[in-house]
Amino acid sequence: MTSLDQTINDLVIANRILAHEQIVDAYGHVSIRHPKRADRFLLSRSRSPELVEPGDIMEFTLDGQVAGDDKRPPYLERFIHAGIYEKRPDLMAVVHSHAEGVLPFTVTDKPLVPVIHSASEIGLRVPVWDIAEKFGDTSLLVTDREQGRDLAAKFGPNSVVLMRGHGFAAGGQTLLQVLRMSVALPKNARVYLEAMRLGPVKGLSAGEITKRQTVMGIAETPATLRAWEYWACRCGCGHLLPGAGAQANR
Amino acid sequence: MTSLDQTINDLVIANRILAHEQIVDAYGHVSIRHPKRADRFLLSRSRSPELVEPGDIMEFTLDGQVAGDDKRPPYLERFIHAGIYEKRPDLMAVVHSHAEGVLPFTVTDKPLVPVIHSASEIGLRVPVWDIAEKFGDTSLLVTDREQGRDLAAKFGPNSVVLMRGHGFAAGGQTLLQVLRMSVALPKNARVYLEAMRLGPVKGLSAGEITKRQTVMGIAETPATLRAWEYWACRCGCGHLLPGAGAQANR
Amino acid sequence: MTSLDQTINDLVIANRILAHEQIVDAYGHVSIRHPKRADRFLLSRSRSPELVEPGDIMEFTLDGQVAGDDKRPPYLERFIHAGIYEKRPDLMAVVHSHAEGVLPFTVTDKPLVPVIHSASEIGLRVPVWDIAEKFGDTSLLVTDREQGRDLAAKFGPNSVVLMRGHGFAAGGQTLLQVLRMSVALPKNARVYLEAMRLGPVKGLSAGEITKRQTVMGIAETPATLRAWEYWACRCGCGHLLPGAGAQANR
Amino acid sequence: MTSLDQTINDLVIANRILAHEQIVDAYGHVSIRHPKRADRFLLSRSRSPELVEPGDIMEFTLDGQVAGDDKRPPYLERFIHAGIYEKRPDLMAVVHSHAEGVLPFTVTDKPLVPVIHSASEIGLRVPVWDIAEKFGDTSLLVTDREQGRDLAAKFGPNSVVLMRGHGFAAGGQTLLQVLRMSVALPKNARVYLEAMRLGPVKGLSAGEITKRQTVMGIAETPATLRAWEYWACRCGCGHLLPGAGAQANR
Repeated sequence: MTSLDQTINDLVIANRILAHEQIVDAYGHVSIRHPKRADRFLLSRSRSPELVEPGDIMEFTLDGQVAGDDKRPPYLERFIHAGIYEKRPDLMAVVHSHAEGVLPFTVTDKPLVPVIHSASEIGLRVPVWDIAEKFGDTSLLVTDREQGRDLAAKFGPNSVVLMRGHGFAAGGQTLLQVLRMSVALPKNARVYLEAMRLGPVKGLSAGEITKRQTVMGIAETPATLRAWEYWACRCGCGHLLPGAGAQANR
Repeated sequence: MTSLDQTINDLVIANRILAHEQIVDAYGHVSIRHPKRADRFLLSRSRSPELVEPGDIMEFTLDGQVAGDDKRPPYLERFIHAGIYEKRPDLMAVVHSHAEGVLPFTVTDKPLVPVIHSASEIGLRVPVWDIAEKFGDTSLLVTDREQGRDLAAKFGPNSVVLMRGHGFAAGGQTLLQVLRMSVALPKNARVYLEAMRLGPVKGLSAGEITKRQTVMGIAETPATLRAWEYWACRCGCGHLLPGAGAQANR
Repeated sequence: MTSLDQTINDLVIANRILAHEQIVDAYGHVSIRHPKRADRFLLSRSRSPELVEPGDIMEFTLDGQVAGDDKRPPYLERFIHAGIYEKRPDLMAVVHSHAEGVLPFTVTDKPLVPVIHSASEIGLRVPVWDIAEKFGDTSLLVTDREQGRDLAAKFGPNSVVLMRGHGFAAGGQTLLQVLRMSVALPKNARVYLEAMRLGPVKGLSAGEITKRQTVMGIAETPATLRAWEYWACRCGCGHLLPGAGAQANR
Repeated sequence: MTSLDQTINDLVIANRILAHEQIVDAYGHVSIRHPKRADRFLLSRSRSPELVEPGDIMEFTLDGQVAGDDKRPPYLERFIHAGIYEKRPDLMAVVHSHAEGVLPFTVTDKPLVPVIHSASEIGLRVPVWDIAEKFGDTSLLVTDREQGRDLAAKFGPNSVVLMRGHGFAAGGQTLLQVLRMSVALPKNARVYLEAMRLGPVKGLSAGEITKRQTVMGIAETPATLRAWEYWACRCGCGHLLPGAGAQANR
């Protein structure tokens, strides 16, 4: 496989993983920056992640336009991805999700903080973007470049931004990192909500968050790849893993 | 397929979708107005939605009577559908459900409002109908025309009515619209309940609800059909989709 | 099939249903009174309900002893069933469960009341039996006749008794009735718990509970049999239904 | 099969059970003390429990080092197991998990106590270990011997220790016992949390906990083996049970 084919293969697996782990459903999407052109990103045509196949992947420029003459309908909200890739050259993958667990934190003023170790990558600060602040009454969807850029501005130097009444957008330095965050974020939100009922909650410290970067970070270690293998097998994509046949002996 | 056959096919898929998405279980049902006769509607015989097949669909008049000489037992609560179709000529599909998520809002005075964007179609006002107000002690089931009409009166110009200690009835301008609402409604209820624990909750504005009609509305766009394809495939009905074979190339 | 074979067949289906609907897990059980001998009841050997087969069913006397020379190990808690069958000649089927939804109500003083219509059969009053009241420190298991009789005394004229820190026992006039109650009870408990967070809760009235008996009751109507067909098909027992082949034409 | 082969077979089943019962996911692990060498324990290589096969099992010394020249990457947190086996010669199996249900109790001061009978084995006192107390800012992972020993010291004479913002470690006198505890612990935590909303909660008494040891304890009785058979069958390992063919006639 070429590098691009491999990237597309991974992106298809990521779509299926997010669907199986209930981070996305009919809606929500995941993209990856083009492996050879930093000014392009790859994202499925308008299709639910669980059903995405390699042939569904389209190519986009950083202003959210379809690259080339691909006539298939794209996601309305591709501007979420475009905005973040433009703003943050260090990020290689973006997820947008309506995961139920985080939604309560998008409609109230209580800040979401990491309280479980697996959610450390969401960072100490998770901003909430309310589309109404700048755009007034809208469909709440991010459907043009200006909205995508405004979202990206709120995203800023963080890893995740909550979207009021809508969901979240997360960006990772690798595809695996953004999957980890996307899976951990709703779990962290649910745990935090329940813990508040028991009394004051001790969240992760800034130092702990930093230390965890040295363990998880972006490296593909046995500890991080373990999750990729697990998630891929669970969603029926074990056979799409590189070296699937040799997996057991790794 | 004839237009009627296609409508019945869609209605069967809708039954299976609602079962798989856990909006209905042994009980609950979905109907569609007859495509050629506005004074008739189609609804399964007394059978759980997950098991409904094309041959199970029966035809009813707007007073809830079986059309023709079909002797099979109908649902006791077909009057929910009859009442709404009679009251609201603009509606083409009706769902009745006992979905757990909405039930807390049926037995208290706290109004259910839309707080997540996907639930905008439930509208700013979701009335609660208490059968006891007019009919005193009953089985809580809507088993005659008078009860169906009373429910429809409370439903009024809205999209959804909660039924005290029982569930909800929702009406859509299309089958897809009422499915979307039925799936979003319990999720919205759960999110709202959890959000209240965090502090004051910001719901959707009237303007946002209106704006969203222009995006979702009743049109069959790639964005709205995506959910239909996804739900149908998930519940094992992918092969029943029109043009199923061509799906991947669309 | 003989009447006894049919009863055993139904009991096996009921075991599988309760497992699939998550009312029982490794533990919990369901029994039925012997169709020809009112002083006997049928219950599986010590095996998890999901795995129970016709050959696993054993026969017991109303003092909880194995009838005949069946040497296989019975459930330790068969005395729950024995006690209720002895106390209540009108009841034909008993379920014992540790369903999570009801457990919070077994360890506090807040009475569980029916708030959703499908739970009307649990009745206005659901007593809580605390084994410690009479027996002091025990394993909390009902392992002899005296304990079973004490539980049955607390059960009294009701349909369900909660067991402190343990679960519930429910008795029905038919197998289908006790299944319905067992499925509805945890759902009702969860809804009630959530509803309390919204404000004062309106439960079912005594009159409503009585009225519902006339609709659901013990009769095998299309409305009640619908649940049996649905649950049986869901747990993989569709082929065990009487007249399975003719099902679709019924 | 040799005794070691049988132990490894059981450990593989235990991995699959914990995954299927949602006690572990991509992360978390289960170990067993070596059946012939009390100074060794068996644990999978770095792989998600759901995917573990007999060939994945590695052997470790009580200081957490790989025994022999096995070059495959081990779990980073094998020191949890090493620390507990070293501290507690009476324990034969250890589970480490991030199960969501217990997490709220790891980040607040509210003690977790057993309130449901199936959780009696967690004991009256469940200490919470905060890695920061002794080690300051870390990745929260237990990645060396000193940390493992500190965790084991907090574990002390108990059956379970909660780990702040992380999960729990549980130790059993048998593999089956630690599985039971691991399954019951999150359920108990959820029930306790919900029960608190209803009013004062009555937990198990010290006497009840002791009495239950005589019923469940470490013996392999029909009542305890029932869970093993059930869990193994559910996770697709029924065919790996000793005497699988004879199961139905037992």
